[in-house]
Amino acid sequence: MTVMATSSRRAFSFPLRVYWEDTDAGGIVFYANYLKYMERGRTEWLRSLGIAQSTLREETGGMFVVLETSVRYLKPARLDDELLVTASLSEQGRASLIIAQQVLSKPEQSAEATVLCEGSIRIGWVDSRTLRPGRIPVSILQSLQTT
Amino acid sequence: MTVMATSSRRAFSFPLRVYWEDTDAGGIVFYANYLKYMERGRTEWLRSLGIAQSTLREETGGMFVVLETSVRYLKPARLDDELLVTASLSEQGRASLIIAQQVLSKPEQSAEATVLCEGSIRIGWVDSRTLRPGRIPVSILQSLQTT
Amino acid sequence: MTVMATSSRRAFSFPLRVYWEDTDAGGIVFYANYLKYMERGRTEWLRSLGIAQSTLREETGGMFVVLETSVRYLKPARLDDELLVTASLSEQGRASLIIAQQVLSKPEQSAEATVLCEGSIRIGWVDSRTLRPGRIPVSILQSLQTT
Amino acid sequence: MTVMATSSRRAFSFPLRVYWEDTDAGGIVFYANYLKYMERGRTEWLRSLGIAQSTLREETGGMFVVLETSVRYLKPARLDDELLVTASLSEQGRASLIIAQQVLSKPEQSAEATVLCEGSIRIGWVDSRTLRPGRIPVSILQSLQTT
Repeated sequence: MTVMATSSRRAFSFPLRVYWEDTDAGGIVFYANYLKYMERGRTEWLRSLGIAQSTLREETGGMFVVLETSVRYLKPARLDDELLVTASLSEQGRASLIIAQQVLSKPEQSAEATVLCEGSIRIGWVDSRTLRPGRIPVSILQSLQTT
Repeated sequence: MTVMATSSRRAFSFPLRVYWEDTDAGGIVFYANYLKYMERGRTEWLRSLGIAQSTLREETGGMFVVLETSVRYLKPARLDDELLVTASLSEQGRASLIIAQQVLSKPEQSAEATVLCEGSIRIGWVDSRTLRPGRIPVSILQSLQTT
Repeated sequence: MTVMATSSRRAFSFPLRVYWEDTDAGGIVFYANYLKYMERGRTEWLRSLGIAQSTLREETGGMFVVLETSVRYLKPARLDDELLVTASLSEQGRASLIIAQQVLSKPEQSAEATVLCEGSIRIGWVDSRTLRPGRIPVSILQSLQTT
Repeated sequence: MTVMATSSRRAFSFPLRVYWEDTDAGGIVFYANYLKYMERGRTEWLRSLGIAQSTLREETGGMFVVLETSVRYLKPARLDDELLVTASLSEQGRASLIIAQQVLSKPEQSAEATVLCEGSIRIGWVDSRTLRPGRIPVSILQSLQTT
């Protein structure tokens, strides 16, 4: 497993808005929903590399599944907030990848973005029918090289 | 299409509890989640009639999908509330059924249950692969006769 | 209650993408999630009219809640699909509004958009604390006049 | 921070059923939903110790929020599956607790339960309004002693 240095490059980022559906009775975004935000960010990051998950499944019979999530919730987001979710490759193996992700408040004017939540998501390649692990297709690994 | 009188019989009811996941920043259950509550109630009602949806899909290659929902939200439910969701057959056709449902606050002691939400859900039978409409299997219609 | 003709004007529309979180084991978008899509569309439509719900709540102590939803599901959407959700004012009363909404597949090139789902959502103005119905603030009614 | 040994005692467990709402287009339970299952398990575990979160909030002005989640997904669950979610105190501090949780397939007859998903959830006590961290009320700590 090769560790990919990502700190020197700007991570992919994707904008989000907080809607009622995302909040809970505490008045803030329900913590489990950050996993959804990260999934959207990961999906758009893969798409930006030319990797469309629904097409992949038809062509290769395989798909990524989430194997492990590790998330820290630092500051709350609220209704109507504009957020950014980032994604960058943290580790690359033959059967799984670790993606580093952050959810940030979208900075206004000169202000810096604040990290609200950060996580590390391990996704593994499986056969769509049997769900058995397999090697990540070469075409995907090649697309990831460009990051 | 035959209208089934259901008023004279006690509708099937299923208990629920409100968790954080169900609420929104208004401090109450997010309205879209009542559709989930009703789905749970419908599923358990079908199961009580001997109809298990995952087994059906394997055996018949078909499944129910929701075609139409009409829901009125009367009173809010809150975190930790205990609720009841009811289900009863309202109309039965060859390709679709209409299920009448209510979500009620669970009555304490002598108090009567309050209706929080009520709806009418039309579900139709489709082929699981093509999603094309088809006739509801006879075995299901027979099970529904017992209600 | 005055019926507002909206057919002659182009409805507000907002783009969406289908992610894993939106789908169910039937391989399609879970029907309850169309209510979330419609909420996002409604929120952005109100925002386009200068009405921000979180600001409103702070300024007026009131908020909109959903009183009634009536939705027909016509065709399924799938993972990675690009959708459009529309919103337009259908009826305007003193205490509630009816919003007409559609979810469409985003048309590719010359093709026309297909309606996947359409609904009518009644929202009512309430006091945020007591949840008691009240009159919609004049500033909102004025903003709606511009539609 | 004192580590509480929990291995020698039977963890609290709470039954669950998988509904359509929980699944995704992969045909299995969407991974983010295990956080909801664990939340339900945690809530019922706290309730079994006499700790009701909505009452607490009214009485103390404080509430628990999730600070950190670490989850491993081992085997998939599917529609209609019966599951068990466990909860036990793993670590206890002055301002936060770590809860160890598992989601298991409900064992049939003599078979053993299979662990589908396991996680460690850190929850912290905050003021409900300001969301600032604070000390966990003594009454809660006392209730936890009984586990």
